[in-house]
Amino acid sequence: MNVRQRLSPEDMRDRIVAVAEEHFRRIGYAKTAVADIAAAMGMSPANVYRFFPSKSAINNAICAKLMLEVDQLMESIARAPESATDRLRAYFLELHRNNKDKLTHEHRIHDMVEVAMAENWPAIECHCNSMVSFLARIVADGVRTGEFRAVDPEAFAQTAFDAAAKFLHPTLIAHNADRDQLDQVSRITDLLLAALRP
Amino acid sequence: MNVRQRLSPEDMRDRIVAVAEEHFRRIGYAKTAVADIAAAMGMSPANVYRFFPSKSAINNAICAKLMLEVDQLMESIARAPESATDRLRAYFLELHRNNKDKLTHEHRIHDMVEVAMAENWPAIECHCNSMVSFLARIVADGVRTGEFRAVDPEAFAQTAFDAAAKFLHPTLIAHNADRDQLDQVSRITDLLLAALRP
Repeated sequence: MNVRQRLSPEDMRDRIVAVAEEHFRRIGYAKTAVADIAAAMGMSPANVYRFFPSKSAINNAICAKLMLEVDQLMESIARAPESATDRLRAYFLELHRNNKDKLTHEHRIHDMVEVAMAENWPAIECHCNSMVSFLARIVADGVRTGEFRAVDPEAFAQTAFDAAAKFLHPTLIAHNADRDQLDQVSRITDLLLAALRP
Repeated sequence: MNVRQRLSPEDMRDRIVAVAEEHFRRIGYAKTAVADIAAAMGMSPANVYRFFPSKSAINNAICAKLMLEVDQLMESIARAPESATDRLRAYFLELHRNNKDKLTHEHRIHDMVEVAMAENWPAIECHCNSMVSFLARIVADGVRTGEFRAVDPEAFAQTAFDAAAKFLHPTLIAHNADRDQLDQVSRITDLLLAALRP
């Protein structure tokens, strides 16, 4: 009920994001109104608007949270002590699994991602750039140890990331929602590693 | 006007397909009714239905025609006398240009392709298989001449085709409608050729 009296502004934002995320996942982005989120928290819509100017702003905050989680996972893979080859495999497998799990198990989330991609392209592009730089770190390590041939790590990582769109891009994953794409992941990863042979 | 008195059933089908294609491109697939196509030909809708059971069937015929044109273009590239490397480059560049031109210059066609992809997946899959087999022929030639390392041509071609989704897939091309993707085409093609180095 009077939840806002107990929480700091920061905590209030987190709480609104959590409640909205639960609604978007259960009911769908399009069918959820800010009034529904407010009602679930025992607040007036006006109060929600004190923290977020629009439903779209709430959605962007949810997507930012999801992207931060992936960032942390991929950074831990890039920093792991394994060989560059093993880390490159883990990178694509985990990124695929992460994107696919979110889209498959949480069907509604796809709408949220599509809305965010349409409305907030800079944030998504920034997220993709961050993904590419983790991959570039792995490639640079492999070049340094002689595991890979001497490529420009940033340029190669960007190209490799683009070449993995079939199993990383939310839209194409959604097209293949009922198909196991693990074979595709491993075939394309093999191809990337073949291109990196010294 | 009494166009159907002058034409054979085969020609009638071609004529309906041509008129429908013009309407779909100008007005859009969703906004065109079979009655509009019939009216433009001075026929009754019932007469159009004698040749095609539904608007979707007309759309599938249009898509089949477009796919046949691409088939012929790609086959001529696969059979050309150039080196396998040059043919592989030409293959991806022309296939990208073809898909992009159709989606960019003829904006409405995207709806038709999306409808066909949703309603007539076997035809699209069959088209993709045919594209992959032209690519496999190029790869096999390169393996035979020693230009490429010894890969399984069919398997490599399938993986390479998937790795090119970013610039071949209609949905992703549509996302990048206002961007020049030629740099992407050349970077991914270089990566594929690097993977084929002997």
